[in-house]
Amino acid sequence: MNDSAPIHHVKVIGAGLIGTSIALGLKSAGYVLTIEDEDISAEEIAQDLIGQNRGFDLAEGSDEVIPELIIIATPILAVPNLVREAAERYSAARVIDIGGLKSDVVREVEKFPEIAKRFCSTHPMAGREISGALAARGDLFEGRIWIYTPLSGTESRTVDSALEVITALGAIPVLRGAVEHDRIIAGISHMPQVASSLLSATLKDMSVEDLGLAGTGLRDVSRLAASNPDLWAELLHANRASLLPFLEEFTNILNDLSTSLQNDDLRKTHEILEAARVNHRRIPGKHGGKKRDYWYLPIIIDDRPGQLAAIFDACNEVAANVEDLSIEHTPGQESGLVTLALSKVDAMKVFDHLLNAGWKVHQPRESIG
Amino acid sequence: MNDSAPIHHVKVIGAGLIGTSIALGLKSAGYVLTIEDEDISAEEIAQDLIGQNRGFDLAEGSDEVIPELIIIATPILAVPNLVREAAERYSAARVIDIGGLKSDVVREVEKFPEIAKRFCSTHPMAGREISGALAARGDLFEGRIWIYTPLSGTESRTVDSALEVITALGAIPVLRGAVEHDRIIAGISHMPQVASSLLSATLKDMSVEDLGLAGTGLRDVSRLAASNPDLWAELLHANRASLLPFLEEFTNILNDLSTSLQNDDLRKTHEILEAARVNHRRIPGKHGGKKRDYWYLPIIIDDRPGQLAAIFDACNEVAANVEDLSIEHTPGQESGLVTLALSKVDAMKVFDHLLNAGWKVHQPRESIG
Repeated sequence: MNDSAPIHHVKVIGAGLIGTSIALGLKSAGYVLTIEDEDISAEEIAQDLIGQNRGFDLAEGSDEVIPELIIIATPILAVPNLVREAAERYSAARVIDIGGLKSDVVREVEKFPEIAKRFCSTHPMAGREISGALAARGDLFEGRIWIYTPLSGTESRTVDSALEVITALGAIPVLRGAVEHDRIIAGISHMPQVASSLLSATLKDMSVEDLGLAGTGLRDVSRLAASNPDLWAELLHANRASLLPFLEEFTNILNDLSTSLQNDDLRKTHEILEAARVNHRRIPGKHGGKKRDYWYLPIIIDDRPGQLAAIFDACNEVAANVEDLSIEHTPGQESGLVTLALSKVDAMKVFDHLLNAGWKVHQPRESIG
Repeated sequence: MNDSAPIHHVKVIGAGLIGTSIALGLKSAGYVLTIEDEDISAEEIAQDLIGQNRGFDLAEGSDEVIPELIIIATPILAVPNLVREAAERYSAARVIDIGGLKSDVVREVEKFPEIAKRFCSTHPMAGREISGALAARGDLFEGRIWIYTPLSGTESRTVDSALEVITALGAIPVLRGAVEHDRIIAGISHMPQVASSLLSATLKDMSVEDLGLAGTGLRDVSRLAASNPDLWAELLHANRASLLPFLEEFTNILNDLSTSLQNDDLRKTHEILEAARVNHRRIPGKHGGKKRDYWYLPIIIDDRPGQLAAIFDACNEVAANVEDLSIEHTPGQESGLVTLALSKVDAMKVFDHLLNAGWKVHQPRESIG
């Protein structure tokens, strides 16, 4: 091992959403990037996006420039071999991956202690529901959690390189062990996928007309069922050791609920729903942390250009900061419902102001309607 | 039975969210309203909201004005008795309820054929996640589905009265039989509640720190777990005959998935996820119908007043109509991500316009990022 050089040149292997977004973000942060993919078409799109022809591979004539950091951004099954290949080809480079599971990768790479010194496994918690280089953006990771998982033999300088990249992309590094990581992912990512898919599959005998009577509840809970089965079957199986205990617990509670309904044991059903409600309070809200204390201001508008601009102008006139907003259309009608989320003080200010200006605005309320 | 009079005077029994919203909406539509509730405080709030002192009960001196329509808007267990009481007290009035389940109410009222003539059961598909008169608004039902369920003996004039009210409130009447209604509700409303609560309860042993690493998937799928267990235990038990077959199917698919994971049978897991994805396409999207064909335009803004107003002014300048919008804050940073949903043509117009004006706007894309 040489002493590590500072990172200037970064090679990204894998031109999907995450790899391309990393390349875009690091380029903006001043690094020199190259990106490659076994899919030539994906590689070319990503290279166009990051403007690689102005990058290092063609910069200094014909000789290849040596990257100080390699980022493996491929599907998880390919990661261990690519880590070894990259580490062997660039004998001074540090290597990180961004795979969604850690145990297998860590176990495989730890078989090669010399390589493990220069490898740190990582996992950005962003962007899994969209894919492809065209969906990439350099700010994808800003403010997102990015887990990093050093191996037992990972050198501290390698960890520093991983942290440098995570920080340069605006993400928040969080340390977790490999087994711990995979268990957490089973709970917060794989179990929601399972619950959502089970619900959707269960309703397969209902008619489209009857499903069309559903409100937002079914829509939200079944949303993840739209995910790619190729990707998710692979993920669930790669993580089955961590997932199965959660599935067993889920099954137990389901069986308890079925029994309490069969026996008309209202008290027991209530107990299950109450435990679910109590635990739900521990799950982070919309902004990845605890729920903010917004007030909601409903306004009925005409469904035509200029209405929202006028509302925001009005907010601006009273120096109110709109924290969030929803727009609900009424099918077949010319009106829409806009709900602004504001601080309580701002909600009151905007309410008075809009009311005086003749808007169909309703009293601010503490829960969204 | 007298010939039915046209409806002028309506009495609402039950001053919760639905009852009060109905009263507000019908008052706006020109009807004369009164509302009552066994909870005097709730009754007074609702009466204030609808301005009942300008209503009919005090209008013409001291004698009670006779309503032509009674709307029972109480919890479901109280409905059958209240229907009988109302029908007996006002012998020419039509009566409807708005309960979330139909079989029990219909069976109870059908025991009294003379009353059944003047009763039609109904169920507005709106507003179940909020409660109380203070959350009421007269436009709650605009554009929403409102199921109506005549009894075998219901007179057509009674059905006409129900349809008159539904239509006056801007809702869309949909006919369903009682048993059919309850089976549909088990699928589209009670099963999402069950799946969401099971997921939340399953994660009870995870630490708050680990739950804090979760993204939007867990949040959306577990959202309904926050629902009121008193209300939901009662609903699930009242509908258990319709719910149990769905629960059995859900359990079967869960067991299949557990088995395929235990046996590392990737093909079978894929098949389950694929069936879920295929069925998900039949579930209505955000606006209660098929998904709209929006393009999404991401814009990075400073998190301060005036930014959104400026964006909407810019949209207005190019006559673009913003169909939807999301705002994402980056914790601990001064910037936010605004994503506008627009038609493809408008997205391109706004993109060019904002880019020229120096905004940090990204290429419009077909899926939300």
